[in-house]
Amino acid sequence: MTILSTDLLRPASYVYGTWHTNADGQTLVDPVYGRPVAVISSEGVDFAQALRYAREVGGPAIRKQTMHTRARALRALATYLMERKEDYYTLNLLTGATRRDGWVDIEGGIGTLFSYASMARRELPDERFLPEGKVEQLGKGGTFVARHILVPREGVSVQINAYNFPVWGMLEKLAPAFLGGMPSLVKPAPQTAYLTERVVRDIIASGLLPEGSLQLVTGDPGDLLDHVEEQDIVAFTGSAATAQKLRVHPNIVARNVPFNTEADSLNASVLGLSVRPEDPEFTLFVKEVAREMTGKAGQKCTAIRRPLVPRHMVEPVIAALQQELSKVTLGDPSRDDVRMGALVSTDQRERVRETLQALQKEARVVIGGERDLLGGDREKGAFLDPTLLLCESPLTATAPHELEAFGPVATLMPYDTLEEAALLTRMGRGSLVASIVTHDRTEATELVMGMASAHGRLLILNRDNAKESTGHGSPLPQLKHGGPGRAGSGEELAGVAGIKHHMNKVAIQADPTTLAAITREYVPGGEVREDGVHPFRKSFDEIQVGDSLLTHRRTVTEADIVNFANVSGDHFYAHVDEIGAKEGIFGRRVAHGYFLLSAAAGQFVSAAPGPVLANYGLEGLRFVEPVGIGDTIRTRLTCKRKIRKDLRPGETRPTGVVEWHAQITNQHDALVATYDILTLVERARDAFDPQFEPLDEEGAAQA
Amino acid sequence: MTILSTDLLRPASYVYGTWHTNADGQTLVDPVYGRPVAVISSEGVDFAQALRYAREVGGPAIRKQTMHTRARALRALATYLMERKEDYYTLNLLTGATRRDGWVDIEGGIGTLFSYASMARRELPDERFLPEGKVEQLGKGGTFVARHILVPREGVSVQINAYNFPVWGMLEKLAPAFLGGMPSLVKPAPQTAYLTERVVRDIIASGLLPEGSLQLVTGDPGDLLDHVEEQDIVAFTGSAATAQKLRVHPNIVARNVPFNTEADSLNASVLGLSVRPEDPEFTLFVKEVAREMTGKAGQKCTAIRRPLVPRHMVEPVIAALQQELSKVTLGDPSRDDVRMGALVSTDQRERVRETLQALQKEARVVIGGERDLLGGDREKGAFLDPTLLLCESPLTATAPHELEAFGPVATLMPYDTLEEAALLTRMGRGSLVASIVTHDRTEATELVMGMASAHGRLLILNRDNAKESTGHGSPLPQLKHGGPGRAGSGEELAGVAGIKHHMNKVAIQADPTTLAAITREYVPGGEVREDGVHPFRKSFDEIQVGDSLLTHRRTVTEADIVNFANVSGDHFYAHVDEIGAKEGIFGRRVAHGYFLLSAAAGQFVSAAPGPVLANYGLEGLRFVEPVGIGDTIRTRLTCKRKIRKDLRPGETRPTGVVEWHAQITNQHDALVATYDILTLVERARDAFDPQFEPLDEEGAAQA
Repeated sequence: MTILSTDLLRPASYVYGTWHTNADGQTLVDPVYGRPVAVISSEGVDFAQALRYAREVGGPAIRKQTMHTRARALRALATYLMERKEDYYTLNLLTGATRRDGWVDIEGGIGTLFSYASMARRELPDERFLPEGKVEQLGKGGTFVARHILVPREGVSVQINAYNFPVWGMLEKLAPAFLGGMPSLVKPAPQTAYLTERVVRDIIASGLLPEGSLQLVTGDPGDLLDHVEEQDIVAFTGSAATAQKLRVHPNIVARNVPFNTEADSLNASVLGLSVRPEDPEFTLFVKEVAREMTGKAGQKCTAIRRPLVPRHMVEPVIAALQQELSKVTLGDPSRDDVRMGALVSTDQRERVRETLQALQKEARVVIGGERDLLGGDREKGAFLDPTLLLCESPLTATAPHELEAFGPVATLMPYDTLEEAALLTRMGRGSLVASIVTHDRTEATELVMGMASAHGRLLILNRDNAKESTGHGSPLPQLKHGGPGRAGSGEELAGVAGIKHHMNKVAIQADPTTLAAITREYVPGGEVREDGVHPFRKSFDEIQVGDSLLTHRRTVTEADIVNFANVSGDHFYAHVDEIGAKEGIFGRRVAHGYFLLSAAAGQFVSAAPGPVLANYGLEGLRFVEPVGIGDTIRTRLTCKRKIRKDLRPGETRPTGVVEWHAQITNQHDALVATYDILTLVERARDAFDPQFEPLDEEGAAQA
Repeated sequence: MTILSTDLLRPASYVYGTWHTNADGQTLVDPVYGRPVAVISSEGVDFAQALRYAREVGGPAIRKQTMHTRARALRALATYLMERKEDYYTLNLLTGATRRDGWVDIEGGIGTLFSYASMARRELPDERFLPEGKVEQLGKGGTFVARHILVPREGVSVQINAYNFPVWGMLEKLAPAFLGGMPSLVKPAPQTAYLTERVVRDIIASGLLPEGSLQLVTGDPGDLLDHVEEQDIVAFTGSAATAQKLRVHPNIVARNVPFNTEADSLNASVLGLSVRPEDPEFTLFVKEVAREMTGKAGQKCTAIRRPLVPRHMVEPVIAALQQELSKVTLGDPSRDDVRMGALVSTDQRERVRETLQALQKEARVVIGGERDLLGGDREKGAFLDPTLLLCESPLTATAPHELEAFGPVATLMPYDTLEEAALLTRMGRGSLVASIVTHDRTEATELVMGMASAHGRLLILNRDNAKESTGHGSPLPQLKHGGPGRAGSGEELAGVAGIKHHMNKVAIQADPTTLAAITREYVPGGEVREDGVHPFRKSFDEIQVGDSLLTHRRTVTEADIVNFANVSGDHFYAHVDEIGAKEGIFGRRVAHGYFLLSAAAGQFVSAAPGPVLANYGLEGLRFVEPVGIGDTIRTRLTCKRKIRKDLRPGETRPTGVVEWHAQITNQHDALVATYDILTLVERARDAFDPQFEPLDEEGAAQA
């Protein structure tokens, strides 16, 4: 199969609303046969103008949308790109990567859009800002309260990406930036920029993101960083050396521009001390190490560089790895019988070879040698055979903990105790990830606690989770990607935290009524609204935050407690045993807590069919004071917040979630219980926005 | 009153377990009379050794303690220091500050210890690590799950503090660092280091913190930053210029040491467009501006530098401020009739005068002039009179938005629209705080949304909260202190977030049983333990996470629904109205959700008196499937986590909180409801740790 046309690719830049191409520039060659592939250059791009365009056109357009609207756009975009994935797979082969390697990049990237879109609609409000944490009481009188909110930074998210994941690397940054309200300016690494460009072309053509949300600079970044400002952020993925250079850029420093780094690290995988060669964990370990060494030809920032094994397991592990690695066929990644392709360039291979040389001062090659090439060109291509080194004295060695061969290379290290194993992992001075392969939970816990300070992610792999495990090397949208020290000290993904990186957190101090107006959530102590209409008779669209009902009173009698004990079957002594209750903490029989909940519902429910369809949940219930025989309770129910819902497939009844704050008080006006109720409420038909299209949640989950 | 003895103070450094003093060094003079006060020098301090000592002695000692133990130590320390506060007030006068200024520093600082101690025991588990967020399901089969935990960074918190808050500045960093598990190395600004040193002497003498938790470098920081490592962090408070210099220190950059900055900013206060001179908000605004200009002689990073008023209010505001500022008496801060003392040094005054000159290119002085001194020396002291400038065209001016006169100086600016007011605040390019003085909630909301991206804290001040308001200039332990851009892009305090800055977040991926073992919280889907003893018959100390009970079954009948409707008074149509229910979302009559809760309690409660004293709350209730007539339910109750509790004053019965995960299923084993119950459980008398001393919560609240 010939994947190259005779024409060179000319990936362009997309800036200030137009595509910008250059006739001349840097020529890239493919690393399989060494043939020219593409010419790239950013010559003529006005970086200051691109940043201004993002700030003045993209940012305001995104910030006009609510977070749910942004999420729907991302979801539509993911579907749009998934339909075009084969185009990306074709270009992927040019980078030296196999289709399997490309899957992680292409479908992994698009899957990240799906995940973020779904997470945002599930976990964020349908607003332009994000309240965080609880309301803080700042005064005893209750007139001075505070809460944090997050709002979009009013700048640009400048994203400088690595060559190894041209699609995922862009999308995993674009998704949280867009959801957080920031436009992106993407600067991919030159080597594989044509693949990134291809995806950007589709994104722009889709028209699904507001104009200005995404710009692309293909080629040299020029004076880009001279023009970043206080509200911008820079997110960098790549080598530690480049990160250091950019981080101290005078303009970045002068303007305190947040600079987030995700750098390659010397990730370890620890085979537990308890594992025997016949255990399933032994095979899991060997397969995981081999997969991480050879996937993407080892060019993954999360790849296993340092497999650590109990000293007595060194020989069996080498033997098993030898066998596993012998199955790895090398050659033209477009061939079905090839398991591993080439490095991205011969330059890159040269760097890996130099590092391999340096490593051999403290370690020796135990698995290596050239295998037959299945297609591709040994001379002009950038092939490198999987190589395993053994470092016998890792506690005193330095190179294997410091030098990273960014290719199919790992250094095996023996250890004697769990403490030593944890110490060895920490000698990497900060890693993105480490794995622990054991079925012994005590061992796993000890290792985790010894390793946690120096890692961003820890995978415990064993027979129980192997089938569903996503593996050592896979960052997931829900989990932190990043690590301390060597790994760059940054954080990406981590679910909603990844979105928050693009927002500014601000503490708001006010009186409860003003805080409620600002956060659009009722704050206890704030003014309520009573218009004579029972709030349960109002549709979702009619209900307003602060709408409130103070119920009639009810005196709790001995009969109530007895009846409730009988209907529930709950004959706890504090309710029904006069002797036990006297000696108990309340000193007398008291009503069941759930009786109070139930009686409160009896007070505030509007019995006839109406817009409130169901109470589907409850949060934050606290019983504050006991209620005894003869006490009289009443309940105040206040609309706390409203959450619009998307229609699910097959649903015809548009609804929203209304959260109510309930307060039960006694005859002394003392609070006896407080909680929040979640109800599903019908929307007024005429208020329903046809733009809320049915969403196929299943589709998202599959992706 | 003479506050100087004839002997010079010789504040020392406390490093690697010893006090280190020098005979010679920099001589500091008091800014009131210009007399020599102290000699300081860090000559001979081995900074590399100090950092090693913190890592090898302090860190391990702190990390051995649980977070509650650390909190108890902080609380005891706060009490200890409060008893010695008069010593600090005496030294405070030497810095040029009045007793009132000192109150913010000294009692504000000690109060921060109290707050953090109480917050940690309330909001953190009694563990050495901190689980964060929810358990993420990573596979459909439920065998692969993940959660984030935070563990202490295994390095040193290097704290470089500003001169203006020698006590608070240290304690507000020490508290979260210590709770987060990190030892502190404190480098106070030289000008007021003798006051910091005095407090450190007491802390060390108290013996309440483990040795190595706190070291002090009085004098030049020497080559300190050459020795910081990947697990360390640096927290800097001071000028933007110094921050920039330190941030790019080659070793900090090479090792990706997190560098947190809190820099002075050009904070604004906006008088609302709706406010009339006769409104209470007018007076509140004037008083707040005057207080912020003159408190600590204006040497506060949060002080109001840019009061913004509607254009038509310029004259009335100047007149009112003139009157308010005329009450500010200037002189020797030890005198009772003095409202404002001196700047910290004549050098500092020189800098402020230079800035004042520069500001006058775009603004003119409208309130100024020298007033009579009440004690102190005009020539040798560092007195400066309150000065108000007026900048008539602030939208085109640059200096008032860029140059900070760090003294009793502010620049008044007129605005025409709310949008313009918000823009003007943002022209400061990032501020710690701004205030909005208005009683109009629409106006407040519009201003907040226009200003939020550029600020760390926003105070809305009005007649409703003025009495309890802590004011524009006061950072609070619960709230973020820090701001984007000019303000340094850092974050301090913010409650538990401040503690987390000293920890490393790591995602743990595992099977549910292993994740439960690591996080010490039951994870749904993980193994449970059933030993034949009802879990409610076990004391707090006997119950183990994972202890579980699967109850008997109960068939829900029509009689149950009827009886429950009658006892609760809840006759909602979905339960009791055959016609309405048929047309409702369930298509039939279903049991009340609270009946299910109550019946489940009837299934799992152990009725006779026992260690479980009360169910005091409930979290995360979700009704998943409706239950109809004839359905049969059963409940599984599993111990999710345990939280030890301190004895409160007067309490004799030691207890703990046990959180139970409840799952109600139907005859098809489908989940119908899930929730967590909070119970108070007695501790076994012999398991009770006498070290858990009774804690006086009231004392903490008062502080």
